[in-house]
Amino acid sequence: MAILLENQFSELPNTNEISTKSFLESVSHLPSFFDSLGFKVFAPIKADINGNITKIQAVYDSDPVKYETLQKMLEAEKTMYGSEWPKAGATLALMWLKRGLRFIQILLQSLADGERDENNPNHIRVNINKAYEQALKKYHGWIVQKIFKAALLAAPYRSDFLKGLSKGQVVTEEDCLADIRQFLVNFSATVDAIYEMYTVMNAELDYMV
Amino acid sequence: MAILLENQFSELPNTNEISTKSFLESVSHLPSFFDSLGFKVFAPIKADINGNITKIQAVYDSDPVKYETLQKMLEAEKTMYGSEWPKAGATLALMWLKRGLRFIQILLQSLADGERDENNPNHIRVNINKAYEQALKKYHGWIVQKIFKAALLAAPYRSDFLKGLSKGQVVTEEDCLADIRQFLVNFSATVDAIYEMYTVMNAELDYMV
Ligand SMILES: CCCCCCCCCCCCC/C=C/[C@@H](O)[C@H](CO[C@@H]1O[C@H](CO)[C@H](O)[C@H](OS(=O)(=O)O)[C@H]1O)NC(=O)CCCCCCCCCCC
Ligand SMILES: CCCCCCCCCCCCC/C=C/[C@@H](O)[C@H](CO[C@@H]1O[C@H](CO)[C@H](O)[C@H](OS(=O)(=O)O)[C@H]1O)NC(=O)CCCCCCCCCCC
Repeated sequence: MAILLENQFSELPNTNEISTKSFLESVSHLPSFFDSLGFKVFAPIKADINGNITKIQAVYDSDPVKYETLQKMLEAEKTMYGSEWPKAGATLALMWLKRGLRFIQILLQSLADGERDENNPNHIRVNINKAYEQALKKYHGWIVQKIFKAALLAAPYRSDFLKGLSKGQVVTEEDCLADIRQFLVNFSATVDAIYEMYTVMNAELDYMV
Repeated sequence: MAILLENQFSELPNTNEISTKSFLESVSHLPSFFDSLGFKVFAPIKADINGNITKIQAVYDSDPVKYETLQKMLEAEKTMYGSEWPKAGATLALMWLKRGLRFIQILLQSLADGERDENNPNHIRVNINKAYEQALKKYHGWIVQKIFKAALLAAPYRSDFLKGLSKGQVVTEEDCLADIRQFLVNFSATVDAIYEMYTVMNAELDYMV
């Protein structure tokens, strides 16, 4: 489980404040997650997520003290952007990034929970679909939804996907699932905390692309 | 017709040799062509084409004399890459770029020729489909073909597309089509010459993505 466990997310403090620096460090390894999905139709998604990360990183680098935590970043931008906010700056980038993270969270959780299509036990379409429906679908117009459906056909087999995540290391499926569960502990806590923050700060938008 | 006519391609010399520098200068304005297609699902295509151009530019910049014409570039790379060639370097980038250029050529030619779906006279799907079938389809596996079909639904109306090409200038449709015809003269000659070069040099591949 090279990719996942080598880059675990940090444990959150009791305050649930997320250190921007450590978040960016952990999240920067995730786009390669899409390489484990194999097919190159996923390249534009990887590019979109990389774009989000680059944007947040640039804001952080411009003043690491001011933007020390993700909470501080949203607060500062709210003041800075006025009525444009939250559709601006790192706030917008993180709004979309968190949806991609939620997608990954639900997909991995569903695999860890052993959810399967009994008729196609080596497919992960049912897991991807669940993740898509809960994390992204409502933000996509019907054309992007159709593109998603077509792209889904390029999803790898379950066994290849798990192998991809463990990056060539020989591990049993059970080891791999155990690693996923381990990874999900801090990862899910982080993603949940970001969602909570958007709700509390009234920073969530539901426009479609 | 700001976008097109402000950046016309140069006339070819009798030898049909294409100056790399002048080709790169003209072609660099084309990715914004996809902005006139409106919808953001075309962003990954624009990125792919931009990637091709950047690659060819980098090879050219590394030795502008050695790579003075596109022909010289292919010859030099053929020697340099040995059995890897033609699936390498600027040769590969131009192989794909020319397909995007051919797509644009056929789409514009079909509009200039007045080809229309009589039942949907303000749609350009029939023109896009023709361009796709002749320029790209055979290089795309069935999943990418399906994605194309879904993306096609995001194609703009004919009137908006023509307006987009003339970038806000008020021109009649006839003026616009006349400009397209004018643009196509040198553009088609250039694209045809590149295809001819790939045939003569036996540099064409037909693998699918
Ligand atoms: C020849 C044939 C050609 C056909 C071409 C078709 C091309 C199809 C293009 C598909 C779209 C790729 C995915 C990208 C979608 C993006 O449009 C959305 C919104 O993207 C956001 O938009 C904001 C402005 O509204 C800002 O620009 C954000 O940028 S900002 O940083 O500047 O603020 C940006 O992320 N992101 C999304 O929907 C996020 C997507 C995450 C996906 C997560 C995993 C999904 C896995 C799926 C597995 C099956
Ligand atoms: C949440 C939902 C998520 C769903 C995500 C779905 C994402 C869908 C992705 C669609 C693909 C976008 C188009 C890109 C396709 C590319 O795969 C191909 C081959 O691309 C080439 O590949 C080579 C290696 O084989 C080199 O890397 C070349 O790069 S190199 O420079 O390094 O050598 C590279 O251009 N280019 C192409 O097929 C060219 C495409 C030209 C298109 C022209 C106009 C079409 C207009 C269509 C109008 C309707």
